[in-house]
Amino acid sequence: KINGDRLWDSLMEMAKIGPGVAGGNNRQTLTDEDAEGRALFQKWCEDAGCTMGLDQMGNMFARREGTDPDALPVYVGSHLDTQPTGGKYDGVLGVLGGLELIRSLNDMNIKTKHPIVVTNFTNEEGTRYAPAMLSSGVFAGIHTQDWAYDREDAEGKKFGDELKRIGWRGDEEVGARKMHAFFELHIEQGPILEAEGKDIGVVTHGQGLSWTQVTITGKDAHTGSTPMPMRRNAGLAMARVLDAVDEIAWSHAPHAVGAAGHIDVFPNSRNVIPGKVVFTVDFRSPELEVIEDMELRLREQGQEIADAMGVEIEFEKVGGFDPVKFDDACVTAVRSAAERLGYSHLDIISGAGHDACWINRVAPTAMVMCPCVDGLSHNEAEEISKDWAEAGANVLFHAVVETAEI
Amino acid sequence: KINGDRLWDSLMEMAKIGPGVAGGNNRQTLTDEDAEGRALFQKWCEDAGCTMGLDQMGNMFARREGTDPDALPVYVGSHLDTQPTGGKYDGVLGVLGGLELIRSLNDMNIKTKHPIVVTNFTNEEGTRYAPAMLSSGVFAGIHTQDWAYDREDAEGKKFGDELKRIGWRGDEEVGARKMHAFFELHIEQGPILEAEGKDIGVVTHGQGLSWTQVTITGKDAHTGSTPMPMRRNAGLAMARVLDAVDEIAWSHAPHAVGAAGHIDVFPNSRNVIPGKVVFTVDFRSPELEVIEDMELRLREQGQEIADAMGVEIEFEKVGGFDPVKFDDACVTAVRSAAERLGYSHLDIISGAGHDACWINRVAPTAMVMCPCVDGLSHNEAEEISKDWAEAGANVLFHAVVETAEI
Ligand SMILES: NC(=O)NCCC(=O)O
Ligand SMILES: NC(=O)NCCC(=O)O
Repeated sequence: KINGDRLWDSLMEMAKIGPGVAGGNNRQTLTDEDAEGRALFQKWCEDAGCTMGLDQMGNMFARREGTDPDALPVYVGSHLDTQPTGGKYDGVLGVLGGLELIRSLNDMNIKTKHPIVVTNFTNEEGTRYAPAMLSSGVFAGIHTQDWAYDREDAEGKKFGDELKRIGWRGDEEVGARKMHAFFELHIEQGPILEAEGKDIGVVTHGQGLSWTQVTITGKDAHTGSTPMPMRRNAGLAMARVLDAVDEIAWSHAPHAVGAAGHIDVFPNSRNVIPGKVVFTVDFRSPELEVIEDMELRLREQGQEIADAMGVEIEFEKVGGFDPVKFDDACVTAVRSAAERLGYSHLDIISGAGHDACWINRVAPTAMVMCPCVDGLSHNEAEEISKDWAEAGANVLFHAVVETAEI
Repeated sequence: KINGDRLWDSLMEMAKIGPGVAGGNNRQTLTDEDAEGRALFQKWCEDAGCTMGLDQMGNMFARREGTDPDALPVYVGSHLDTQPTGGKYDGVLGVLGGLELIRSLNDMNIKTKHPIVVTNFTNEEGTRYAPAMLSSGVFAGIHTQDWAYDREDAEGKKFGDELKRIGWRGDEEVGARKMHAFFELHIEQGPILEAEGKDIGVVTHGQGLSWTQVTITGKDAHTGSTPMPMRRNAGLAMARVLDAVDEIAWSHAPHAVGAAGHIDVFPNSRNVIPGKVVFTVDFRSPELEVIEDMELRLREQGQEIADAMGVEIEFEKVGGFDPVKFDDACVTAVRSAAERLGYSHLDIISGAGHDACWINRVAPTAMVMCPCVDGLSHNEAEEISKDWAEAGANVLFHAVVETAEI
């Protein structure tokens, strides 16, 4: 078993970097805080005897050697970046759970046949740079590196430039590494495990995602002196599209969700009818046809709303992945580990996207989930218990060690 | 008659300060650009033989002496600040039309019994600091100066501090000046004069305004892993309130308008259900009861929407003024001037708020309006013809000179 206290202490130590305003974290990707978190992780890994690799997307790979020089490594990991008002565990648990696994192997003086590599993927959250899971996506060959480097944040700063600025652009070719398997430990971010009173989620599938950026162009005009019939109010058109998004998602419930988290209004002045709005619609479902139906209806209904109101509407898909089925053998390794350790467990579908969803394209992959309080995540109040963290890390440990062979 | 070419040249010269991105202006109040615009105006006034007064709200008063030492001055003016994506004429025409009036009196060597004072009021637009017409409001005793100094912009910078920073906080007590009368020339910002083919609007009334800042608090949560029934989506609640605002305004059309120009979403991340939104609803009507009805229905319907969705809603009135009836004698002076000069004219109600609306509380006041293309304002594409500007300034000139007595 791993050392639950040490894991918890490391989680709390990392949470000191880029603190939020309400007990959580704001350690967004490619900020100075991200750099500081990376440096701390590197130090911990080196203290644990690992060597650190760094690729051209800033993905970090801490390697503990195996006994067989020809064996491909087993990878574990997740991400250290957070939402602007994020929690202390989303992503971090998967990275530090991987580190704890190495520390425990060291304590027990266990050698594995396959090397073990703990990974921190750059920009999983996708807040500062869409899409989410950008760097695991480049690793898996989904996006080109050039395209990723060109992504811009809200201030127009490019991903490639910011990666260089914070000093974490490595030389290693992205995706060149071959993996024997990949395991990601993550908090559930949903309410099911807690409600069902289960210690462990055995993640069999991941639901798919579609991000559509919608731009509505009306006409800036005076809120006082412009008669109602002359208005081309982009903000009002957005309001109607947001209502349609909700209705579309509900029409597929419980097999779909939908919302818009990002909304920018221009010029955003109290007495100017909005001439332009840009917002991103997030649709998800475990079923590809449902996602496709929702995307289509968004475009159809959005166009109808725009036409009726005399405004222009444009749709751009800025992120997405198809529903994922994880590797049977890896999933079985996770389930058996939970079984062996005597933890109650449940097969579940991940509601969120994860680096594992992309890595699953290039390596046998599975995920371990632990509950989180009230299913709350992407909120500074995100919380888990030390016992949950420990159980998750123990299952990760056993599944990985079994796969890496002693 | 005034010199239309000179007036136009001055308008174009001022428009070079704080240029926008699409041919208009971004010379928001208490910015460095505002300071630069003020300095140019001061230079022009001093070149025209005026002495400049400056009060503690940064209101500027350029005085041309009269022949009777006991006569109260006749005031003219408007504002030099603009929207973030504003036009070249909104406000500026009223200030530079006043300057042109003085320059023309100088050219013609005309002395008036009453002094004439050209005024530039600080922060008329209300974009950076709500409410609009802040400094004419303090002048008229509507707001206290301390309260005005405490207003904060989106970055938390206080009005009083920024006024000092740009170097335009004067010593003169605000509102100490007594006015014989006040005249404001302004572009219509609406479509009526152009549609009716009239040169001049004789403004008899101003419609009232109500700004309600609405804050909706839901719960930040993951857009993917949070089941639809567990969501408390503040952005979706806002969408429904925005639709209600539109419906409420239309129910009183054509005697009311309503919209929200300012919308801020938190944390504004693509994969976070908005936990908080803040937006400002702008309702207007020439009838006080209509404004009161709209405010009430906003609060009632907003509360119903919030209750149904399990989110919190708060309403704060952040600006407003009752419908205005301008001074009969001043209005008559404007109408007779248009008549005398042979301009076609129409009695109209101002759709926008103006410094004249507050000054009307402390001095006999009226306004002159000229058409603008397509009624478009609060848009960089705001446009007027030189002829329209000249006609407006001529009517201002005649109404003022008649009131100031030769
Ligand atoms: N796990 C997680 O929150 N990932 C961010 C990508 C997503 O929105 O699902
Ligand atoms: N004239 C003008 O646009 N004033 C700004 C205040 C308002 O919104 O009416």
